[in-house]
Amino acid sequence: MTDLLPARTPHTLTIDADRLWASLMQLARVGAYTDAATGLIGVDRQSLTDADAEGRRLLIRWMDDAGLEVTVDEMGSIFGRREGREPDVAPVMAASHVDSVATAGAFDGCLGVLGGLEVVRSLDDAGITTRRPLVVAAFTEEEGVRFGTDMLGSAVAAGRLTLEYAYDLVDSAGLRFGDELVRIGFRGDRPVRLDPPHAYVECHIEQGPVLAQQGFAVGVVTGVQAISWQRVTIHGRAAHAGTTPTELRVDAGLAAAQVVVHVREMVDSGRYGRLRGTVGHLSASPGLPSVVPDRAELTVDLRNPDDALMAAAEADLAAFLDDLPERQPGLRVESTRMAKTSAVPFSVDVQGAIASAAADLGIPTMRLMSGAGHDAQEIAAIAPTAMVFVRGQYDGISHNPREYSTPEDCAAGIAVLGTTLLRLAEEARA
Amino acid sequence: MTDLLPARTPHTLTIDADRLWASLMQLARVGAYTDAATGLIGVDRQSLTDADAEGRRLLIRWMDDAGLEVTVDEMGSIFGRREGREPDVAPVMAASHVDSVATAGAFDGCLGVLGGLEVVRSLDDAGITTRRPLVVAAFTEEEGVRFGTDMLGSAVAAGRLTLEYAYDLVDSAGLRFGDELVRIGFRGDRPVRLDPPHAYVECHIEQGPVLAQQGFAVGVVTGVQAISWQRVTIHGRAAHAGTTPTELRVDAGLAAAQVVVHVREMVDSGRYGRLRGTVGHLSASPGLPSVVPDRAELTVDLRNPDDALMAAAEADLAAFLDDLPERQPGLRVESTRMAKTSAVPFSVDVQGAIASAAADLGIPTMRLMSGAGHDAQEIAAIAPTAMVFVRGQYDGISHNPREYSTPEDCAAGIAVLGTTLLRLAEEARA
Repeated sequence: MTDLLPARTPHTLTIDADRLWASLMQLARVGAYTDAATGLIGVDRQSLTDADAEGRRLLIRWMDDAGLEVTVDEMGSIFGRREGREPDVAPVMAASHVDSVATAGAFDGCLGVLGGLEVVRSLDDAGITTRRPLVVAAFTEEEGVRFGTDMLGSAVAAGRLTLEYAYDLVDSAGLRFGDELVRIGFRGDRPVRLDPPHAYVECHIEQGPVLAQQGFAVGVVTGVQAISWQRVTIHGRAAHAGTTPTELRVDAGLAAAQVVVHVREMVDSGRYGRLRGTVGHLSASPGLPSVVPDRAELTVDLRNPDDALMAAAEADLAAFLDDLPERQPGLRVESTRMAKTSAVPFSVDVQGAIASAAADLGIPTMRLMSGAGHDAQEIAAIAPTAMVFVRGQYDGISHNPREYSTPEDCAAGIAVLGTTLLRLAEEARA
Repeated sequence: MTDLLPARTPHTLTIDADRLWASLMQLARVGAYTDAATGLIGVDRQSLTDADAEGRRLLIRWMDDAGLEVTVDEMGSIFGRREGREPDVAPVMAASHVDSVATAGAFDGCLGVLGGLEVVRSLDDAGITTRRPLVVAAFTEEEGVRFGTDMLGSAVAAGRLTLEYAYDLVDSAGLRFGDELVRIGFRGDRPVRLDPPHAYVECHIEQGPVLAQQGFAVGVVTGVQAISWQRVTIHGRAAHAGTTPTELRVDAGLAAAQVVVHVREMVDSGRYGRLRGTVGHLSASPGLPSVVPDRAELTVDLRNPDDALMAAAEADLAAFLDDLPERQPGLRVESTRMAKTSAVPFSVDVQGAIASAAADLGIPTMRLMSGAGHDAQEIAAIAPTAMVFVRGQYDGISHNPREYSTPEDCAAGIAVLGTTLLRLAEEARA
């Protein structure tokens, strides 16, 4: 999709790896805490807290220093615009978030935002102008840990959720999102509905083990999987382990275990494509060695890049749950949907731009799905979108102070981001 | 085994059902409490508490009133002796316990002790003397809930545990058994090692659903099952449910579920005879929907009336646990034995005496195993022993204020107990 570039535009962008790393480490000091168990330094910058406000102010100072025109929208999301040679055409956008979970590392979200800033700094250093404006943005409350809805800022920006819905969310202390936004001084006046950019590229740590396992520093993300969360509660009948014959038992714990095993069988069968299935929560009560459990609870997390195959997997699970009382008459099974999102395939064109930018930089890449949710999946509804993933260490652990990507891998990812943005920003199409 | 009875001895014993019931209900008022959830009246007479002491004093007063010679042994177990025509021959003994769990009903243990007392009262009413002396006894700390070892009084009486072991046990508040025994005034001077009685018969509620299910008020107990308790801890690796490919997972929760399913398969296979298998405790951590569990814990309770088949079942389980890391490399499995007792088959002769007594009373019986532990299994080591079970209502629920057996069923069980004791007490054998 890349048009012929003007001769004076460099084919690839060189970024300053040390400057990028220094910014990441500096922002990570805002909201820093010492993890009691490990002694590691973690980050707690949950959205609309004082720490979040301090991080936001640091980001805006850096944006100002880089000559960006900073605006804040009605959701508090921060936009820094670098003007293009043709100010009236749709900009190219690089964004992510700077809010964090309560036990975070330095990279989740911040790499994409500070990486975008580093791209701007590097373009300035090289004296490069782009045809299209470039926008670096940080969306509010991506994590959803404080107000319960993740990708909140980008979802409102893209029009999936309303401003009113967001403002009326409350945290566990009963504090209202809209009030907290005013309190920290970040209720901006930029209209929240985002004018569709020409393209959207988000660089993010993988938060998984695939790139490390396969030996790639950088990955091209093909989309975000569909997610289906259910809570299953099984009611049986308490009975004495010694005195109750097997045929008279209604064992809720056994039924729960059968569900766990069945979920893995669904995955292994191959019938549902690239289905992933996880039972993360599993418990039986009363939990005494000599009492047959009268109640068991479990969660089933299904992920699938294909909505139709996801629907088929959900139907399989529902049928299995329905049949449990046939195996053990007297059993009662309740299932509640906790979350459900559709698969979001990313733009093939933007994926291609990322892949060829990396190739031209001499950085090998592989394609992979995103298992986690990202702002990119919201913006994908209004603009051609894709993501760059950066390899994580320690099996890609994230939402944890151990979260770590090397300076070299971060620089590689941002060089790919910058080169991609540079090329997309020269594209002629409206 | 019953010899010819002297002509003046009635062939069956008639007992006073109302008097038996009144005694049960009166003792149940000692340590009574109101269950907050249900409003039902429960009993809390844990051993060596003030409530236990009050219950003991009531029992001794009734024994005195019935003309029994009361002695208390070094463990606090209470013996009431009714003299026989031949005072020097070994007595026939009927015993159980009057201590309770924290949330008990009126019947567990008490039925056997107060039933033995009712037999004595009925013999007196009928003017019947027996060749052998009759001893009615209540053993200390059968439940094991306070000091952690069940069947404690009878185990020391039969010589399996020492007096020193028992005295040095401490409760959760750090109070010592030996000190508490002195404090409530029940450290007696009768030597704790019991001279083997001619025969031992214990009447107890079934604490299970079999008699109700099969339609019998009374059962003849063939023995106590072997018990094997293990705690299994499985260590896997935490991983993100969305980003971690299935083949890279080490899922401790899945492995735990596979154990639960396998335990039931062992039972259903029939390879291990009348094996019962229960996983009562089952949990996975960290317990979050989107995190593959890094740790799971479960308990496995196996019961079997046959020691060899129990050993084979334990070996099957051990092999299954050993093989788990082959299914998921990286998994680590620990298994700890929590409890292990051998099967105790009861005397065929005493079972026969019970069965024919019931038949002569016109009370149909079935044979069944005991799933729970009882003082009878300790005394079985030193004397011919068997038990009479009485049907429980509500699936035989026990250790719960809902525990209930009807006055008619209790009377039937004690009529069988009394008639059996009467016949055994006439036997000529040493």
